[in-house]
Amino acid sequence: MFGDISAKAAYQLSLPEVSDFFSKLIQRVAPKSYQQALGEVYVTQKFLENFCGDQVRFLARSFAVPGNHLGQQSHGFRWPYGPVAIITPFNFPLEIPLLQLMGALYMGNKPVVKVDSKVCIVMEQMIRLLHDCGLPMEDVDFINSDGNTMNKLLKEAEPRMTLFTGSSRVADKLAVDLKGRIKLEDAGFDWKILGPDVQEVDYVAWVCDQDAYACSGQKCSAQSILFMHENWTKTPLLRKMADLAARRKLDDLTVGPVLTFTTEAMLGHMNKLLQISGSKLLFGGEALENHNIPAIYGAIKPTAVFIPLEEILKDNNYELVTKEIFGPFQIVTEYKHNQLPLVLKALEKMNAHLTAAVVSNDPLFLQEVIGKTVNGTTYAGLRARTTGAPQNHWFGPAGDPRGAGIGTPEAIKLVWSCHREIIYDHGPLPQKWEIPTAT
Amino acid sequence: MFGDISAKAAYQLSLPEVSDFFSKLIQRVAPKSYQQALGEVYVTQKFLENFCGDQVRFLARSFAVPGNHLGQQSHGFRWPYGPVAIITPFNFPLEIPLLQLMGALYMGNKPVVKVDSKVCIVMEQMIRLLHDCGLPMEDVDFINSDGNTMNKLLKEAEPRMTLFTGSSRVADKLAVDLKGRIKLEDAGFDWKILGPDVQEVDYVAWVCDQDAYACSGQKCSAQSILFMHENWTKTPLLRKMADLAARRKLDDLTVGPVLTFTTEAMLGHMNKLLQISGSKLLFGGEALENHNIPAIYGAIKPTAVFIPLEEILKDNNYELVTKEIFGPFQIVTEYKHNQLPLVLKALEKMNAHLTAAVVSNDPLFLQEVIGKTVNGTTYAGLRARTTGAPQNHWFGPAGDPRGAGIGTPEAIKLVWSCHREIIYDHGPLPQKWEIPTAT
Amino acid sequence: MFGDISAKAAYQLSLPEVSDFFSKLIQRVAPKSYQQALGEVYVTQKFLENFCGDQVRFLARSFAVPGNHLGQQSHGFRWPYGPVAIITPFNFPLEIPLLQLMGALYMGNKPVVKVDSKVCIVMEQMIRLLHDCGLPMEDVDFINSDGNTMNKLLKEAEPRMTLFTGSSRVADKLAVDLKGRIKLEDAGFDWKILGPDVQEVDYVAWVCDQDAYACSGQKCSAQSILFMHENWTKTPLLRKMADLAARRKLDDLTVGPVLTFTTEAMLGHMNKLLQISGSKLLFGGEALENHNIPAIYGAIKPTAVFIPLEEILKDNNYELVTKEIFGPFQIVTEYKHNQLPLVLKALEKMNAHLTAAVVSNDPLFLQEVIGKTVNGTTYAGLRARTTGAPQNHWFGPAGDPRGAGIGTPEAIKLVWSCHREIIYDHGPLPQKWEIPTAT
Amino acid sequence: MFGDISAKAAYQLSLPEVSDFFSKLIQRVAPKSYQQALGEVYVTQKFLENFCGDQVRFLARSFAVPGNHLGQQSHGFRWPYGPVAIITPFNFPLEIPLLQLMGALYMGNKPVVKVDSKVCIVMEQMIRLLHDCGLPMEDVDFINSDGNTMNKLLKEAEPRMTLFTGSSRVADKLAVDLKGRIKLEDAGFDWKILGPDVQEVDYVAWVCDQDAYACSGQKCSAQSILFMHENWTKTPLLRKMADLAARRKLDDLTVGPVLTFTTEAMLGHMNKLLQISGSKLLFGGEALENHNIPAIYGAIKPTAVFIPLEEILKDNNYELVTKEIFGPFQIVTEYKHNQLPLVLKALEKMNAHLTAAVVSNDPLFLQEVIGKTVNGTTYAGLRARTTGAPQNHWFGPAGDPRGAGIGTPEAIKLVWSCHREIIYDHGPLPQKWEIPTAT
Repeated sequence: MFGDISAKAAYQLSLPEVSDFFSKLIQRVAPKSYQQALGEVYVTQKFLENFCGDQVRFLARSFAVPGNHLGQQSHGFRWPYGPVAIITPFNFPLEIPLLQLMGALYMGNKPVVKVDSKVCIVMEQMIRLLHDCGLPMEDVDFINSDGNTMNKLLKEAEPRMTLFTGSSRVADKLAVDLKGRIKLEDAGFDWKILGPDVQEVDYVAWVCDQDAYACSGQKCSAQSILFMHENWTKTPLLRKMADLAARRKLDDLTVGPVLTFTTEAMLGHMNKLLQISGSKLLFGGEALENHNIPAIYGAIKPTAVFIPLEEILKDNNYELVTKEIFGPFQIVTEYKHNQLPLVLKALEKMNAHLTAAVVSNDPLFLQEVIGKTVNGTTYAGLRARTTGAPQNHWFGPAGDPRGAGIGTPEAIKLVWSCHREIIYDHGPLPQKWEIPTAT
Repeated sequence: MFGDISAKAAYQLSLPEVSDFFSKLIQRVAPKSYQQALGEVYVTQKFLENFCGDQVRFLARSFAVPGNHLGQQSHGFRWPYGPVAIITPFNFPLEIPLLQLMGALYMGNKPVVKVDSKVCIVMEQMIRLLHDCGLPMEDVDFINSDGNTMNKLLKEAEPRMTLFTGSSRVADKLAVDLKGRIKLEDAGFDWKILGPDVQEVDYVAWVCDQDAYACSGQKCSAQSILFMHENWTKTPLLRKMADLAARRKLDDLTVGPVLTFTTEAMLGHMNKLLQISGSKLLFGGEALENHNIPAIYGAIKPTAVFIPLEEILKDNNYELVTKEIFGPFQIVTEYKHNQLPLVLKALEKMNAHLTAAVVSNDPLFLQEVIGKTVNGTTYAGLRARTTGAPQNHWFGPAGDPRGAGIGTPEAIKLVWSCHREIIYDHGPLPQKWEIPTAT
Repeated sequence: MFGDISAKAAYQLSLPEVSDFFSKLIQRVAPKSYQQALGEVYVTQKFLENFCGDQVRFLARSFAVPGNHLGQQSHGFRWPYGPVAIITPFNFPLEIPLLQLMGALYMGNKPVVKVDSKVCIVMEQMIRLLHDCGLPMEDVDFINSDGNTMNKLLKEAEPRMTLFTGSSRVADKLAVDLKGRIKLEDAGFDWKILGPDVQEVDYVAWVCDQDAYACSGQKCSAQSILFMHENWTKTPLLRKMADLAARRKLDDLTVGPVLTFTTEAMLGHMNKLLQISGSKLLFGGEALENHNIPAIYGAIKPTAVFIPLEEILKDNNYELVTKEIFGPFQIVTEYKHNQLPLVLKALEKMNAHLTAAVVSNDPLFLQEVIGKTVNGTTYAGLRARTTGAPQNHWFGPAGDPRGAGIGTPEAIKLVWSCHREIIYDHGPLPQKWEIPTAT
Repeated sequence: MFGDISAKAAYQLSLPEVSDFFSKLIQRVAPKSYQQALGEVYVTQKFLENFCGDQVRFLARSFAVPGNHLGQQSHGFRWPYGPVAIITPFNFPLEIPLLQLMGALYMGNKPVVKVDSKVCIVMEQMIRLLHDCGLPMEDVDFINSDGNTMNKLLKEAEPRMTLFTGSSRVADKLAVDLKGRIKLEDAGFDWKILGPDVQEVDYVAWVCDQDAYACSGQKCSAQSILFMHENWTKTPLLRKMADLAARRKLDDLTVGPVLTFTTEAMLGHMNKLLQISGSKLLFGGEALENHNIPAIYGAIKPTAVFIPLEEILKDNNYELVTKEIFGPFQIVTEYKHNQLPLVLKALEKMNAHLTAAVVSNDPLFLQEVIGKTVNGTTYAGLRARTTGAPQNHWFGPAGDPRGAGIGTPEAIKLVWSCHREIIYDHGPLPQKWEIPTAT
């Protein structure tokens, strides 16, 4: 049945009038450009196409192994939890809740969904479309509430599993409240390293601009810090990045309001960073002007601050420098050829391990950096980026047993099902079997 | 390297003098018969054989999928956590810690191991044997301590993952202390259902006896409650079970001390049950005599108490009846042909979902019961049992995202590694690539 | 790209006017009822839905295992053959060529397709639809020719792989001509066994009727022989089968022309069978009347002939009885409870191993029969049938390394790709490496 | 059972006296150094370790997918063929027959084994060891015969599958005789390409020497032709290769008798090559002296002949240059930076696709060469080699549906089992089911 629903819903999202409707609806509530909103709709459509036809039943594929005697066979199944909950944030109002919801349904669970109340209208419309495509009304509960109410509901209802996407602070609280019956995808202070082999400067500059500033930096995969090998310092990379950042404007929402930090908070953080010895403002660092964004939101130009590597590693600076600003803001630093161990040390001290990028085509450099880090979704190679969460590869953190994934069959199976072993043991008994002595 | 260590250690355990040494050492500290202790050593040996040669590297098998353009490919890896902890109970002093320890090592983690202090001498000897087989001294930390000290250590050291096997109460406390960074295998009130098709009464009686009373009922998979279809009531099943229970004796430890309940506690619990309307003592129900088991431990004859199904389901009885007694003690009940829904309702109310057995060769009956339950390790068929945790199939609970598994490649991968996605994206750029507009 | 083409083509086939067009087109050239033709279109649509979105790239999933030293990793890929050929028969003019063609394309091959010239108009229309959905013109070559011309073409072009669906005689010739570079799905003398547990006689009779006579028996999976346990002889099964066969009529093509046997050939075969001692005509056995089917085709009523089991096993009868008649014709026999070994002996002597059915819910009976037979697609259980080749499970013969499959991801990977192992070994060299002595 | 046999046999081969016995026995009949013979024993031991314990049953792992209605589930099994045959050559008298034999047994087949009669004493001894480790006498038939007798036996016995390792000529004949019921691992004219990035010249020279001349070039994976990027021509690579070749001597069998070509045949072939315009002898090219190798075998110094790339591609030269000489003999050529397409064209024209090596750490170069070739076992990276068939990765040809593999679980499953689909369909029927109209 879900194969049919997915096929119909995917076809609907492929119609220009429907994808346009959802793209503009997303723009009404989440600060992103039309292109970014359309991308969110597109990924959602492709995800639904992936689970047409029999692909939902293929998700429930089990395996079996012969047992110890004739008639015995052990089967490993993916089994649903039953009643589950889904809690998702404001920045991807369609993609995140829809993908997790369908994953939960595909595996046979009964989900209740709560989307951030500022943006939940998008998912509400999507659920209506799913009903139209054949989803039974009773299969999904959809709740509009604030976080406290939801927290209370979870503690009383005791869902067997809760998927939470959002801030690390709330994630840790929920983990305690729900005694660990949870999967998390929390934010990350995501890093990018440029390796010793300099190539395609224009391309790398453009990817850095998109990684750091698309959606005004409000992707959980946004580039928070850039480590440049000294060879890159000799190129016009930083100048090009500044030029690209300067193209962004409020008109088309290529830069826009920040929902979780005020302008003052962000500029205040910047000023603290600029007190570190050797630091400097590379570009940005000013409030946006001529707008009517409410003061409870933030509005600054795309900003980059340079901090020397040695200073980042100092105990009294480290926490400040690696504080995640969920907005158009990044740290830039440089490392000498023999300083790679310092870079790896800086990375190891980070707590959240969501995305990362290693921009290099040198296989020995790549294996050194990848082997010594633990980030969940790691791009490697000349075209590496930190953002980019399409439906065709896993997206999620690593290094934490609570870590969730999104998008792929593997992610769906990990988050929305558990292993159940059923051992069939039909007999027959061995001929002339007799009762053995007790043990 | 671990393939070699496993091959050597498996060979050592296959030598009669070594397996005899470990069997007797287990008997010195854990109350079980020689045969049961030898079985524990045998399963451990077979597990090690399973990971000889290249099988350890095969555990680290990754997969890859073509990406969106030439030069892009996404890889899904199983990645180690790094520093991890293992905490295991008294009842299987060799098998549980060794299997989890090797699993953690195979996947590349750095484990610290704590075994219940009453029995930890077994694992200490085993680690010495592993050192002799080539395990580097620094790869494993082994701690002897009480629970409080260990709890404090965990809260300070913050291992990325902790595997805990033991009581549900401690499991829930640890889940909160460690903010959910945990995998659990806790105890279970495990059930067996006899279906409508009566066959091989001798065999079924013998399996019931072993499931309920081997190791004096101190397996986490021990049969706690038996649901008999009315067709079985007409057979001599219960009489045969009584006869088999009566064979058990302290001499050869086919019944022995109970480490977590006193004799008084168990008989007191029984007396409360016998106040339920329609209940009766089937056999046992007395303290063992002529022994020098210390009073802090329990010592009773294998015991079975009958409670009518309707009484079990009553709200004021349910919690009492389904209280787990980690000793030679089981509940027996009967259901009429049309009462299967009541049985399923009783099962659904249980919290822990470790093992279960459905004794029937009727495929429609099996699919009805299995489809409506969620226990982790479920045996189905004429030869079904609740105990039996060999190394060739997964053993663990289901229905809980914190649930651990033990024994198989799947269990090792689930418990001791996480998904890491690495997307290689080497290029080349499309010919005549130009910088797009910002989004 | 093929994900998009599949999504579009599946959507087209889901439109009533398109599926109706193809169903009627199939009926114009292949003798089957509207319902059967529509079923063929439906399976084709569902197959296409299965490979929407990213599912084509997921087919190309590879795996990797760590190597012997830092920097080494071995990867197992599914690799295309390159130039390949597809040759398919008259009975499923859309489903068989389309599923094999798309499988070949999904895995990256360059196929040439030849469909039986009596029915190739269906596939020609389908390829035009695929072009309309985005299939590049140069990706597929489509040939209309007779068998001899195609045979010559194959011997000259030397495709790396040829998929042939059709008669065993041609299959063996092609295997020699192409030196074994071939995958085959040939016809089968398919059997069904009714086990000792009698249930749902109406249902079983109806399935027998459909298995033996739908498409006038011209499915490669059609039921050719029925082994009844003596318990079934006591039921009205045979009478019900006769009644159901009598419902079939030429008007709606529930019985129709036979393309590879004349009426005389079929009745002549029947008469030879009826000379066997103890044999009798159960029903049918007459030519159809009042029709204008050309004399080069056959036209008989649905027919069943009973032959005693002992007679079937005799050397001078066996070949005659197990001759496949690709038309509405089946053998029926009976076995006593202790004669199962004779039935298994009869099955073992058969050469082709395509489909089979074991109608029983007794797990011990099922495992006995299944364990001692080798048919490729075997249904087991009360609802077992011999026909039924949906897109959600593998369909194909077993017991032959040349055997092909159709429908599922596994079938596509087996038939249309081979294993390629690429071992990446980037280094670095061990420090202070020196040239070893020669070996 | 086979897990136990494998564990015991692996342990036996790990004993120095046993591995020494087999190494020397191999040397008695096959011309290779002690180190090479010991390597063969070691790989065999590791292979056996890989299938200890439960790993044999894990090979028989099946999968299952939910069906179309309650009670239906389709299972995909790996099923044995039954009676099978194994025919293996002289060059690896222990590794090839043992690995294939165990693979056939693990999957449940009944094999007959024929090893080249010059070397079959090795396998005869190994089978005795297996009997000692518990292999039942009746499980394996071992035949000593010449090829004609074996050919006749195969045609009469009609094994369901035959594995042949040996020359392409015999392989093609067998494919016809057995109507394609065959898996092949034939010889190959194996190539190595050195990419534009020059590194570690000493190491690459040493690998070239081992690839071309170890076992006197009598590995089916031996390097037959070397394509050097012009950047390598400027290095001392060729001189170093000449020096390394000169170290080889008859005393320790680092060069030795060639079993399938006489000295005259090899030098005659060389002289024909030297008539090609621009060709030259790089080193070797002389008969070995002071030996008592019978004249029916060959004995020459390790030899390399340079041929210009343009000449290789000419139609009248191509077949001559790419003729495989199963001895210490290789072709060397050079390509300019813009001549890579010519190299790829030369590779595409080759028929056999066994092993290959691409020596480069440049990811774009690697993906260009790998993407356009089809060799089965392809090493890529600075440390790439053509030889090296350990038990931890697949070894076998690609691009041919008859292609076999050896060593890994995937190879065993492909060669020694076929897919069998069993669809369990137990019911129940839908409530109020009624007989539908005929179709």
